[in-house]
Amino acid sequence: MDKVLAYIEGHKKDFLDRFCDLLRVQSTSAQSDHRADVRKAAEMTLGFLKQAGIKGQVMETAGHPAVVADSGDGPGKAKALIYGHYDVQPEGDLKLWHSPPFEPTIRDGAVYARGSADDKGQMLTHVFAAEAWMKTHGKLPVRVKYLIEGEEEVGSPSLPDFIKQHKERLACDYVALSDTSQLKAGVPAITYGTRGLVYMEVFLYGPKQNLHSGSFGGTIANPANVLAAMIASMKDAKHRVTIPGFYDDVARLSDKEKKALGELPFDEKEYLAELGSPAAVGEEGFTTNERRWVRPTLEVNGIIGGYTGEGASTVIPAQASAKVSMRLVPNQHAEKIRDAFEAYVGKVCPPTVRLEIKRHGAADAYMIPLDSPGIAAAARAVEKGFGKKPVFMREGGSLPILPMFKQVLGADSLLMGFCMPTCNAHGPNEFFHVHDFEAGIRTAAHFLAEIAA
Amino acid sequence: MDKVLAYIEGHKKDFLDRFCDLLRVQSTSAQSDHRADVRKAAEMTLGFLKQAGIKGQVMETAGHPAVVADSGDGPGKAKALIYGHYDVQPEGDLKLWHSPPFEPTIRDGAVYARGSADDKGQMLTHVFAAEAWMKTHGKLPVRVKYLIEGEEEVGSPSLPDFIKQHKERLACDYVALSDTSQLKAGVPAITYGTRGLVYMEVFLYGPKQNLHSGSFGGTIANPANVLAAMIASMKDAKHRVTIPGFYDDVARLSDKEKKALGELPFDEKEYLAELGSPAAVGEEGFTTNERRWVRPTLEVNGIIGGYTGEGASTVIPAQASAKVSMRLVPNQHAEKIRDAFEAYVGKVCPPTVRLEIKRHGAADAYMIPLDSPGIAAAARAVEKGFGKKPVFMREGGSLPILPMFKQVLGADSLLMGFCMPTCNAHGPNEFFHVHDFEAGIRTAAHFLAEIAA
Repeated sequence: MDKVLAYIEGHKKDFLDRFCDLLRVQSTSAQSDHRADVRKAAEMTLGFLKQAGIKGQVMETAGHPAVVADSGDGPGKAKALIYGHYDVQPEGDLKLWHSPPFEPTIRDGAVYARGSADDKGQMLTHVFAAEAWMKTHGKLPVRVKYLIEGEEEVGSPSLPDFIKQHKERLACDYVALSDTSQLKAGVPAITYGTRGLVYMEVFLYGPKQNLHSGSFGGTIANPANVLAAMIASMKDAKHRVTIPGFYDDVARLSDKEKKALGELPFDEKEYLAELGSPAAVGEEGFTTNERRWVRPTLEVNGIIGGYTGEGASTVIPAQASAKVSMRLVPNQHAEKIRDAFEAYVGKVCPPTVRLEIKRHGAADAYMIPLDSPGIAAAARAVEKGFGKKPVFMREGGSLPILPMFKQVLGADSLLMGFCMPTCNAHGPNEFFHVHDFEAGIRTAAHFLAEIAA
Repeated sequence: MDKVLAYIEGHKKDFLDRFCDLLRVQSTSAQSDHRADVRKAAEMTLGFLKQAGIKGQVMETAGHPAVVADSGDGPGKAKALIYGHYDVQPEGDLKLWHSPPFEPTIRDGAVYARGSADDKGQMLTHVFAAEAWMKTHGKLPVRVKYLIEGEEEVGSPSLPDFIKQHKERLACDYVALSDTSQLKAGVPAITYGTRGLVYMEVFLYGPKQNLHSGSFGGTIANPANVLAAMIASMKDAKHRVTIPGFYDDVARLSDKEKKALGELPFDEKEYLAELGSPAAVGEEGFTTNERRWVRPTLEVNGIIGGYTGEGASTVIPAQASAKVSMRLVPNQHAEKIRDAFEAYVGKVCPPTVRLEIKRHGAADAYMIPLDSPGIAAAARAVEKGFGKKPVFMREGGSLPILPMFKQVLGADSLLMGFCMPTCNAHGPNEFFHVHDFEAGIRTAAHFLAEIAA
C-alpha cells in the first residue's frame, strides 16, 4: 500500500491537471447543442482509464455514450463496479459565477468549475487510484469493473436498458461510487440512502399569443396566474404536499435511526448561513436533516411566463410553464407518484387554459442495510484515506441508478462522498477542495484493498 | 376639403413609405440599449412635421425626448393638441413573429411591424393630414399643436413634469389622439374612457444562489413556490382581487351606460376565436365588455425563477420575480392602490424569503363626458373619414397621460381609434390595415375642419 500512496503523492499535480482537462469539456447532457462535448468527455474518461492500464471502451446507449471498463478478462463477477458520470448540470446564470464554469480555476485550495464535485472530480478519484495500483503493482488487488455514464444529470434515461443488455458484463458484488458528499468540513461520511425523484414540467397555454393586458385583462384566463394558483395548491400551510396519495407509502423513520440522525453533528445556524437562506422551514414535525433525507418534498425548479426582460411590458402571457420535481423516500413508488401528480394537475387545471405535461426523470429512493460487509469495507477505506472515521448519513439528492443496480445486478451500492455538502453542485461556483480530491484518491486506493479482503 | 382628400389619395404610397421608415427604427423605450433609436424616431417624427410645414422641435425631458410642434405662432391656446407616441413595446419572443418586428412587411393589406398600430401608424395619420392641409391650403383650418412623446410604453414617467413646465406652450381646448382601436372590423369607434394602471414588480430572494434541490429540498423556502402562493392569494375563486381596499372607490356602472355597452355589437365566440383563448372568464356578475372596460383587474405580466432552459435541472431557485399589473377604473386612485398592493405583498410574504418591490408605472383611469362638443366633432370626423357612424365605447388599456392633461392643461381628450382591437399591440405580429391607415388620415383631416367649426 505504501507504494500506491507514494505514487498518488508523487502524481498529485498530474492528477489535478488531468482533472482540469476534463472540466474544460462542457458535457451538459441536458442541452442538445453539447452532444459532441458529452461524447468528448466520455472519450477523455476512457483515455484516463487506458492510461491507468485498464481496458475499456466507449459504448453506445440510446442516448449519450457510456464508458465501460474491466480490470479483469472474460466473464465473471467483479468485486466492485465503480460507477460515476462525466456529464454535468447546465451552468445556469453565468453572471453568478466568479470564474467561468468551464475554465477550472483554483481559489482558496479548491477547484471551481461546473462538474468539479458532481461528478467529474469524485469519479476520477477511482480512476487515478486504479492507476496508482496498476503502475506500482501491475494489477489491482481485486477485479473491478467501471461504468461511467453521460446521462446522470438528466435522470439516466438510457442506462436501465443498457445495464439489462450488458448484465453479465457488468456483474459485480457491489457497486461503488463517489457522487455524494461529506457531512461537513472534516466529517467524512458514508451515505446509506438517497431520495428518489419525479421531475415534471407543466405547460399552460392561454391566448394564441401574448395579448395587451389592458385591452383584454380581466376577460380571459392568464396562464401565469393560473399556474401560480396550481403550484400554490400543491402544498398546504404545514408545508405538506397536497397531492392525494403522496404520503401513502412513505416509510416511517425508526426510533433508532431517528436517534442516530439526531446525534450527527449539525448546526442549523451554520447550515442556513452557508446556504444564505433567512430561515429553516419545511414539513411540520420534522428536523432539518429529516426533512432533507427521510421526508419527501415538492419544489419548483424553474418557472417562466410572459415578459421577463427589463422594465414593464403590459402583456397577458400566451403561455406559462413550470418545472416541478418531487423528492421521494422509501417506500414511495416513482411511477405511482408521477401518476398522482398528473392526475392532480389534470384535476386542478381549469378548462380556461390548455394543459400539457412533460415527463422528465423518475426514480425511486434507495437504501443499503447498514450491516452490509461492503459498508464496513467502505468505512475502513474512508477512515484510512481521510484519517478519520466516517459518519453514516442519508442524502437528499437522487441517484436513480441505485435501485436499478439493485434490481438488475442484484448489487447494493457503497456511497463514499468526498466533496463538501455546500459544494454548489447544480448551482454557480461549484467547487471541490484539492485536499479532498487527494484524500478521495487515497480512499479509493484503500477501498480496492479493503473490498478485496 | 376636396383638395385635401385628393392630396391624401395622391400621396397614399408616399405616406405608407414614410410610415414604414419610422417602423424600421427600433424605438423600444423600455430597453436602455435602444436609447439612441428612441431619439432617432423622435427626429424622424419631427422631420415629417417639418415636411408638412409645421414648425417644431425635439425637446429634452428627464427621460426620452418629446417632439413639440405648433401650427401657429407665439402664445395662445390651440383648439387641439395632437398627442401621440413614437416609442414601442419590446418585441418579445422573435420566434413568434412571422416577419421581423422592425422590418415592416405588407401582408393581406396590412402593415406588420412593432408599433404599426401602437402608435406610430395612428400618430402619423395626424401628421400626414396636416401635410395635406398645408400643401393644399398653406395653413390648417384651426391652430393645432403637437406633442409626440417617447415614453408612453413605460408609463410616461417624464411627461407630467414636462407638461407642467411647458403648460402655456401646450395650452389647448382639447387633446386629440389616435391610440385606441375600432370596436371591430367595420365598426369605427370613439373611446370615451380608459382604465388606469399600477405596474409593480415583486422580487423574492431565498438562498444566496441556486441550490441542489435534492440535497436541500424541503428544508428552506423556495422563492418560486412562495411567489406562486403570493400571486395565487391575490385573486379569489370569483376572480375578484383580494387586496384589501381594492374595490373601495370603484365607480358603479350606471344603468344607462350598462344598457348602451350591452347594445354594442359584440360576439363573444368571435372574440375568443380571435384571441385564441379557450373560454371567457373573469369577475363574477359582469359581461366580457364590462370586465375589460369598467372593472379593475390584476394580471401577471411576467414571471421567472430558477432553471428555465431545456430539459431538467434540479435546483431550488435563489430568486423568483413577477411583474404584476392592475388595471384601474374611475374612481380608483393609482397611488392608493399601489400602497394597498405593497402593504398586501409585505403582509403575505413570509420571513423565510427576502422581499423587494419595484414600482413601474402608475396612472389613474380617464373618462370624458359623452355630451362634450369635442366628442361630437370627433364623431363627425370619423363618420366622414370611414363613411360610417362611430360607436361609443371604453378601452381597457391605459393612457396615463389623459388624466394628467385634464389636471394640468384642463383639457379633455378625444380618442379616435383607427386600428383593429386585435391588432396585436404589445404581442407578436402587430399590424395596422392599410385601408384603416388611409381612412385614419382622412378622418384626421376632417377632424381639423370639424373641431374648427
